[in-house]
Amino acid sequence: MVSKIGAPLLADVVEALCEEESYQSVYHMPEHDRPMPSLEALSEFVERLRAVIFPGYFGDSEIQPETMRYHIGGNLDVAYRILVEQILRGHCFFCKADELNCFDCESDAKRIASEFMSKLPEMRKLLATDVQAAYVGDPASKSPGETIFCYPSITALTHHRIAHELYKLNVDLIPRIIGEMAHSKTGIDIHPGARIGEHFFIDHGTGTVIGETCIIGRNVRLYQGVTLGAKSFPQDESGTLIKGIARHPIVEDNVIVYSGATILGRVTIGAGSVIGGNVWVTRSIPAGERLLQSK
Amino acid sequence: MVSKIGAPLLADVVEALCEEESYQSVYHMPEHDRPMPSLEALSEFVERLRAVIFPGYFGDSEIQPETMRYHIGGNLDVAYRILVEQILRGHCFFCKADELNCFDCESDAKRIASEFMSKLPEMRKLLATDVQAAYVGDPASKSPGETIFCYPSITALTHHRIAHELYKLNVDLIPRIIGEMAHSKTGIDIHPGARIGEHFFIDHGTGTVIGETCIIGRNVRLYQGVTLGAKSFPQDESGTLIKGIARHPIVEDNVIVYSGATILGRVTIGAGSVIGGNVWVTRSIPAGERLLQSK
Amino acid sequence: MVSKIGAPLLADVVEALCEEESYQSVYHMPEHDRPMPSLEALSEFVERLRAVIFPGYFGDSEIQPETMRYHIGGNLDVAYRILVEQILRGHCFFCKADELNCFDCESDAKRIASEFMSKLPEMRKLLATDVQAAYVGDPASKSPGETIFCYPSITALTHHRIAHELYKLNVDLIPRIIGEMAHSKTGIDIHPGARIGEHFFIDHGTGTVIGETCIIGRNVRLYQGVTLGAKSFPQDESGTLIKGIARHPIVEDNVIVYSGATILGRVTIGAGSVIGGNVWVTRSIPAGERLLQSK
Amino acid sequence: MVSKIGAPLLADVVEALCEEESYQSVYHMPEHDRPMPSLEALSEFVERLRAVIFPGYFGDSEIQPETMRYHIGGNLDVAYRILVEQILRGHCFFCKADELNCFDCESDAKRIASEFMSKLPEMRKLLATDVQAAYVGDPASKSPGETIFCYPSITALTHHRIAHELYKLNVDLIPRIIGEMAHSKTGIDIHPGARIGEHFFIDHGTGTVIGETCIIGRNVRLYQGVTLGAKSFPQDESGTLIKGIARHPIVEDNVIVYSGATILGRVTIGAGSVIGGNVWVTRSIPAGERLLQSK
Amino acid sequence: MVSKIGAPLLADVVEALCEEESYQSVYHMPEHDRPMPSLEALSEFVERLRAVIFPGYFGDSEIQPETMRYHIGGNLDVAYRILVEQILRGHCFFCKADELNCFDCESDAKRIASEFMSKLPEMRKLLATDVQAAYVGDPASKSPGETIFCYPSITALTHHRIAHELYKLNVDLIPRIIGEMAHSKTGIDIHPGARIGEHFFIDHGTGTVIGETCIIGRNVRLYQGVTLGAKSFPQDESGTLIKGIARHPIVEDNVIVYSGATILGRVTIGAGSVIGGNVWVTRSIPAGERLLQSK
Amino acid sequence: MVSKIGAPLLADVVEALCEEESYQSVYHMPEHDRPMPSLEALSEFVERLRAVIFPGYFGDSEIQPETMRYHIGGNLDVAYRILVEQILRGHCFFCKADELNCFDCESDAKRIASEFMSKLPEMRKLLATDVQAAYVGDPASKSPGETIFCYPSITALTHHRIAHELYKLNVDLIPRIIGEMAHSKTGIDIHPGARIGEHFFIDHGTGTVIGETCIIGRNVRLYQGVTLGAKSFPQDESGTLIKGIARHPIVEDNVIVYSGATILGRVTIGAGSVIGGNVWVTRSIPAGERLLQSK
Repeated sequence: MVSKIGAPLLADVVEALCEEESYQSVYHMPEHDRPMPSLEALSEFVERLRAVIFPGYFGDSEIQPETMRYHIGGNLDVAYRILVEQILRGHCFFCKADELNCFDCESDAKRIASEFMSKLPEMRKLLATDVQAAYVGDPASKSPGETIFCYPSITALTHHRIAHELYKLNVDLIPRIIGEMAHSKTGIDIHPGARIGEHFFIDHGTGTVIGETCIIGRNVRLYQGVTLGAKSFPQDESGTLIKGIARHPIVEDNVIVYSGATILGRVTIGAGSVIGGNVWVTRSIPAGERLLQSK
Repeated sequence: MVSKIGAPLLADVVEALCEEESYQSVYHMPEHDRPMPSLEALSEFVERLRAVIFPGYFGDSEIQPETMRYHIGGNLDVAYRILVEQILRGHCFFCKADELNCFDCESDAKRIASEFMSKLPEMRKLLATDVQAAYVGDPASKSPGETIFCYPSITALTHHRIAHELYKLNVDLIPRIIGEMAHSKTGIDIHPGARIGEHFFIDHGTGTVIGETCIIGRNVRLYQGVTLGAKSFPQDESGTLIKGIARHPIVEDNVIVYSGATILGRVTIGAGSVIGGNVWVTRSIPAGERLLQSK
Repeated sequence: MVSKIGAPLLADVVEALCEEESYQSVYHMPEHDRPMPSLEALSEFVERLRAVIFPGYFGDSEIQPETMRYHIGGNLDVAYRILVEQILRGHCFFCKADELNCFDCESDAKRIASEFMSKLPEMRKLLATDVQAAYVGDPASKSPGETIFCYPSITALTHHRIAHELYKLNVDLIPRIIGEMAHSKTGIDIHPGARIGEHFFIDHGTGTVIGETCIIGRNVRLYQGVTLGAKSFPQDESGTLIKGIARHPIVEDNVIVYSGATILGRVTIGAGSVIGGNVWVTRSIPAGERLLQSK
Repeated sequence: MVSKIGAPLLADVVEALCEEESYQSVYHMPEHDRPMPSLEALSEFVERLRAVIFPGYFGDSEIQPETMRYHIGGNLDVAYRILVEQILRGHCFFCKADELNCFDCESDAKRIASEFMSKLPEMRKLLATDVQAAYVGDPASKSPGETIFCYPSITALTHHRIAHELYKLNVDLIPRIIGEMAHSKTGIDIHPGARIGEHFFIDHGTGTVIGETCIIGRNVRLYQGVTLGAKSFPQDESGTLIKGIARHPIVEDNVIVYSGATILGRVTIGAGSVIGGNVWVTRSIPAGERLLQSK
Repeated sequence: MVSKIGAPLLADVVEALCEEESYQSVYHMPEHDRPMPSLEALSEFVERLRAVIFPGYFGDSEIQPETMRYHIGGNLDVAYRILVEQILRGHCFFCKADELNCFDCESDAKRIASEFMSKLPEMRKLLATDVQAAYVGDPASKSPGETIFCYPSITALTHHRIAHELYKLNVDLIPRIIGEMAHSKTGIDIHPGARIGEHFFIDHGTGTVIGETCIIGRNVRLYQGVTLGAKSFPQDESGTLIKGIARHPIVEDNVIVYSGATILGRVTIGAGSVIGGNVWVTRSIPAGERLLQSK
Repeated sequence: MVSKIGAPLLADVVEALCEEESYQSVYHMPEHDRPMPSLEALSEFVERLRAVIFPGYFGDSEIQPETMRYHIGGNLDVAYRILVEQILRGHCFFCKADELNCFDCESDAKRIASEFMSKLPEMRKLLATDVQAAYVGDPASKSPGETIFCYPSITALTHHRIAHELYKLNVDLIPRIIGEMAHSKTGIDIHPGARIGEHFFIDHGTGTVIGETCIIGRNVRLYQGVTLGAKSFPQDESGTLIKGIARHPIVEDNVIVYSGATILGRVTIGAGSVIGGNVWVTRSIPAGERLLQSK
């Protein structure tokens, strides 16, 4: 039972929380006066890109072809500036340089952000195939537009295709944050490192996990609760996990994986095969095979 | 590597994104100057209905019986106007009429929205049974009110019972959007078409999927990760999925389905039966049967 | 088909919804003029504590050691006042006292809130071990800070460790609401009553459920879709569920439970054991055992 | 020149500002845990009353007679609660009671707030005459509604008629704050104590001042820059201003005072008289006299 | 003294306020389901135009020539749509048509709003001369940009030049509302009807009034508290004010009017003349004359 | 009459507004990628300082002595960072350097902001005397606290004492913006350059103007509509106004200036003198003289 209550007690708690021993492992001293990355800013970044990619569906709801340029341009300009700043913050978060060479970092950040922006037309083209895949893949869907408005698959892939481009550009921290935003909204957990082909669709999606080193082909369809995970985690001599090894499945073109299936390790699921619901797979599957629930 | 950075590069990207070829499949030209449906407006619509159905729990937290009329009336009036507008937008989204007969659409929208509103007392009555079901069905629950405040089952069913009424009124697009809002918040994915009886409860709920043509009786309880899905998707001669066929389970009164169970196809789970955890079911189950995990 | 539309119809609906028979089971008459608990206030409470526990990561993103005291102190002061008020509201929600002794309730609320605040340094210490566990347990993680920013495990445990302290202080209603906030964001459903040791990590997490009377040791790792649940619900003579009995698993130190595993009932999973994916367990497991997917 | 910069300097400044000697005359120790009055809450209070008095012009812009009751009722209910709370805070601001008799204060506050609310129909009736006066008095006005939307005279009188009722009920502090809100928006400074008859109009209004003990009859029109002030401030023996004496003009029915005129002291401006622009008056004026600019 | 308090009293007040007799003169029944004009929307309209006219100073603060097009285009598009809607609402506010010909009104509104938009480059050109006039006219000003950021003269003229164009297009209600917004912010009251030439400057400005039928030449400078008003208000036989007659001064090029001067009636202040502070003028002044304070 | 309407017309307008000739005098090309100063940020800066200076009256309304440190510290820390950034932006606005030496500018900005912060205890001390002056000077005032809550004199002086310190530190642009914020709210226009002694009070205040080079002693009281202005503006040989010359009055200790008085030029109003309402003064006044309205 505490002997103080209210303000005097709070004063003690504040002091305790401000001792270096207390905060050292949950606080990151920012380098070079650069603030920490901002979840709010990254959320705005994604919202603006969503409005750029799907004009009218998100952002301004009265866009016409004649005025589209302004809305897309305005959103892109702000999104670009947010990205430059957040790339810098993410970089500084890991920075160990003693001396200030931030000027180089700034020009790097602009170069990377520009590189990313140049990929947007391609990202939209991919997402348009995902929209098509969702429409044809779900008997309950009435129009491609409906899938843009509210299908978790499209939400998750919008985040993922953005995050994956940033991942390929070796941006620190930001891609994972963007991926986890989609995870929170949709229950679909795709690591930004996963390589995913066109016409991809995840129906329902809750609980589906796609690991960092997955490679997924074209026209693949997953259902809820599917795991494309790692089987084991190699450790180095000191028992520390070795990070970065290819450890997740390769899923070839035209594969369907039904709900609750678990596929673990660097195995290959051959083109056109079907993995049944709740099935547990830790070996490669030949092309065209139908692996069904044993029961 | 891009050769331009910053503003000049953005100008190129904007132009690329504004070419009709780029945007045509991810942009919907609004008809008759009608804006696209708005997720924000629909979110407000649901919040206002939630405050109407559960006065004091949501919306104004100091409602008294004497002042209840004002708060309910104000919320209903605004919700009604939002609904009329969004029904119109949803309708226009699919509209293919060459000539302007929007005047008819407006009076249709008002009629439909009024029809929906007239169902609210009945919807509340159903939800009150769901609250009771959540309270008696969860040993950890301390009062019915607790389930209103925070149980995902109540959140999902509030959305569903609203969306289902709109679905029955043949409203386009809006019901699905409302259903997916609940899916995002709770991980429970109920298609607006599903017919669900009174006293329904889903415990924990994450990952549970209930398909469009499901028919669920009274006093049914599900757990997390349960799938009431389709077994196969009939295709027409051209290989296109045939939409709208009855393809999901019928679950009769007093059934319990434990976590992770998968029930697929137009099968009937007989009254009073129990489906064990992780069980995979693709056939009808007689009334009163206990189908348990084989292990 | 309704015969009225628009305002006249709404008037009828409002009257129907304001009849006592309609609202009585979905409305709670506040006692002693005390408003109902507020989800918005509780959400701010958690956000401020998150900024207190992980300074710089959340809340103000430019905190320095010299100014940390102010930001932590300001957040704590406001969080304390919110907590006092919400404890009171939660208490009044269940209050059945005929006479007004609210003065005692207020001083109780302050005492309890102070008691809670005094536990914050200890909660942070535990969460720092959870951060460490997430970092070492996930090969895809690049720094402990990354897990603070966006891992659902850290989000869920921040909520849980807060909610559990309030649960231990017998606070009504509030702990469950805080737990369900995390459930909505992460898909991880931990009952505030669960006792969880240090260095706890849930990878991916969607669909994982941890019941009220679980006891979890140190250094335990779970994956997505794991259920630590109850096997059956004892009923009293009248058929009413008996609430509060120990009915969930005990998981000892250093246990790993892979995705989709289900452990039910008051069983003990011995120290150092490994439970394979999708496994169904309803008996105790000896220390050190590896219980794998039978397939 | 300071020797420290940034955080270390701030620490010194904070300490200096937290010494009692520094803050004692600019800080008010709240009594009985009651917070200080809130300008934001009072601003909301006035906005809600404005929407009640002029339905459709302010607040919800689609009010119809059939739904008016809900919007007015909802706004009144919230406004009433704000008022009770702010009356209490204002009262506590001046409270010197050693012992806690806050229970009486609360019931007083409810009684006073109810008394105030019961005057609203009468306040609206008066303001309707002011609207009429603005419309007929300004050749540039095209409809009475235009004056409700944007005439500073109506803004200032809405605040004043609210503030004056509170002043008459001996509410502390709140009336003056409400009056100053209008002063800031319109440049018209009316003390809440001033008694103003029906059909009152101030054209343009900037710089017009109406003192605490003014009494203004019916159908009076003022212009910008008019002062109805005090001539001298009687002091008591110790040289302190004596507060509360009648010291401002009485302006009888049907008087017009043109821009820039100054009328000082407890003089009477007789019915139907006209005071010219820039005129300086410190004596009573007989009824019907036209006192013009001497030039 | 009221006999009821709280909710029961409120119920009575609500009923009293909802009697037609009470609300009829302070409520405007909207025609054709069109909502009332919205002050919030008009405020956004002006803010977006301000950002269009002075890019970088208002709205996005990082505009570059290369990206200017997007930000200006986006703001203009939204401002145009707001204007169309508000013109319609303003028009409906005065509409007396029995039959619905709203379709014509909509196309009128679009035509008028387009006409207005086409004047923007000219408005900006005029405002650029006002900026120059403020800079050269105020010895305390350090750069033209400083006057854009914060001089009340520029704020008032931005509103006025917008409102005046709308006035010339015979838009109802909206121009006056826009003018009064500036009056509230700056204390400068310019009627939208006033015709004002280029290079206009009002120093300090509080209390300055410029009437509806004023005509002001080029390069005119006013100070605070200047009135350009009407001398008398001609009435028709029934004693009603005749609206719309030319009744305010003509001020020719290069005139200076010092603070507190009052000029009344349809007089002409000749080119290059100077009117001293506090001077009262009701006759025409020849070109070049210096009319000083007599004292 | 425009020949295009809607989107095509807007496209033309946008192009016209983006021609360099159109925007060159109303757009400022930011140097070194530094954004323009932000009115929103400066507004937040002032609000935070107001909460620091008058704890409890503004900002958090439940501050207690024990928790004051946190709230003041948090507000100061954020205010300091805003100030550093805005000083930089203001500086860059005028920067003409070809080469980048922004690093020096940043360290200058921190030094200046720190210097400013170190003056806060002194500013508060001065403002406490102004509060006292308002209380004793206004017979209608019931407590010093009332003047803090809502007297325009206190609002204007809070802004002024902040702006004047920044002015003394040669900060560009920012002081004037802060001064004009108060002008907009109160109608009191004090140039940041004016030197004002302790115990200063302006009653009512609307329309009062205090010029850049004014020097005002202790215990001075002004009323509404008072001008302390310049008589003439010396021009250089080319006819350009010479900026920065002492040209406004010196007002010595214990002077009272009544409403509407105008004092122009570098004259001295001797200690203890009284200037009557509406009086026009362009010469020095000896100490102790009472200069009254001649009438």
